Amino acid sequence: MLSLIPLTGIPIVQPRDDLGELIAASLAPSGVAPLGDEDILVLTQKVVSRAENRFVDLRTVQPSPRALELAARTSKDARAVEVMLWDTDEVVRVGPRVIVVRHRLGFTCANAGVDASNVAEPGAEMVLRLPDDPDLSARRIRARLRELTGAAPAVVISDSHGRPWREGTVGVAIGVAGMLPVQDLRGVPDLFGRALQITLVGFADQVAAAASLVSGQANEGLPVVLVRGLPFQPDDTASARQIVRPPEYDLFR
Amino acid sequence: MLSLIPLTGIPIVQPRDDLGELIAASLAPSGVAPLGDEDILVLTQKVVSRAENRFVDLRTVQPSPRALELAARTSKDARAVEVMLWDTDEVVRVGPRVIVVRHRLGFTCANAGVDASNVAEPGAEMVLRLPDDPDLSARRIRARLRELTGAAPAVVISDSHGRPWREGTVGVAIGVAGMLPVQDLRGVPDLFGRALQITLVGFADQVAAAASLVSGQANEGLPVVLVRGLPFQPDDTASARQIVRPPEYDLFR
Repeated sequence: MLSLIPLTGIPIVQPRDDLGELIAASLAPSGVAPLGDEDILVLTQKVVSRAENRFVDLRTVQPSPRALELAARTSKDARAVEVMLWDTDEVVRVGPRVIVVRHRLGFTCANAGVDASNVAEPGAEMVLRLPDDPDLSARRIRARLRELTGAAPAVVISDSHGRPWREGTVGVAIGVAGMLPVQDLRGVPDLFGRALQITLVGFADQVAAAASLVSGQANEGLPVVLVRGLPFQPDDTASARQIVRPPEYDLFR
Repeated sequence: MLSLIPLTGIPIVQPRDDLGELIAASLAPSGVAPLGDEDILVLTQKVVSRAENRFVDLRTVQPSPRALELAARTSKDARAVEVMLWDTDEVVRVGPRVIVVRHRLGFTCANAGVDASNVAEPGAEMVLRLPDDPDLSARRIRARLRELTGAAPAVVISDSHGRPWREGTVGVAIGVAGMLPVQDLRGVPDLFGRALQITLVGFADQVAAAASLVSGQANEGLPVVLVRGLPFQPDDTASARQIVRPPEYDLFR
């Protein structure tokens, strides 16, 4: 049985909060202590970005001509678009209300992950950028948990992405530590002993999607979910960059 | 707490097997009886296609010129490509080893969902098509379970889809019964009372992705997963067609 358990009692995270410490303190009240190396912790990017103080006060931002042009086409705040461009390697598509970009982290996503939901009081004119290096964030949280609890679970940092062709956002992994994010089943036999053709499984993305069912998108205040009972392939050098499809295999650039 | 429990003891399903009966019989041995209206059952498309006898013997298929041309470009069996074209409204992209199509069911997916893995003994030259109407399949299984157990859980039929830009397949919903597949959070307040901008959540897709972590892709033989402890929005007229993004909002056609 696979269990997904939201950690309760985590306050609204503030810049420079120690996420490892907040998580360690919430394990017993959430009924999931002790933590084990075979557990997976999924944190929303938002809570990580908050702790890493990735806030930008839009009143300090001067939009570039490119930001002004994109803002006009998308009815967005030009200063927020300017922040998006800071993290953008390439603008992939522009829709009536969305700018799809290739983020400097490699992922293709809407609005470069810059978001004003669950960020600050209405009227505060604040947006939040993705963590600077989500893999590094995940590794740090894992190391801190090992210090505090003795256990080093896998850590996934999740974001909610839209997708071509399908309605609705789904959780995906943008940072990982301790766990291979993509499983290679090449050559594994099927039920009839035939070697599998579909070989790569988006394991970390499925973990993020599952956790997103529990953490919610609105005002649930459950930014960390413990996944227990799911075997994974440990890997101390894993990176969410492994999820980014190499350009030469990408049919949709 | 959200639990995902694979139903054990379901045999390799054969054409005309009664899936509702197989599921009902496996509930007690799997430790999940009684079934409730608030449960969700996720079935792989493969087990549904098997029960509905969606096998095609390639020795009976005569490839069209279009199939021969696409097969040459993709190193695929031209007869399998012909079967893919039966279910294809439009070829979207052709890669070295994949044909991405808009399926007549509305979804954009690789190879029209036609697959030879977990289908038959090596050498049998059989492929399996998607269910003819996965929503109808889901509704029938739900109705049969209500007859047999008194409870009518939500039912999701899942498939594994690749995605642009990201490595690895993930479970998605191609048929649903009893549950809204896309949740609309428009106007729901965030933690700070600000109305959400990102409004649609791919709920059924996330359920399918979560279940796929448990059912596996290879020889696990766990085609049905019970999801328990996850609130959903009941809807007796729901359809996976609601997941298909309308063409006018699709930036990647």
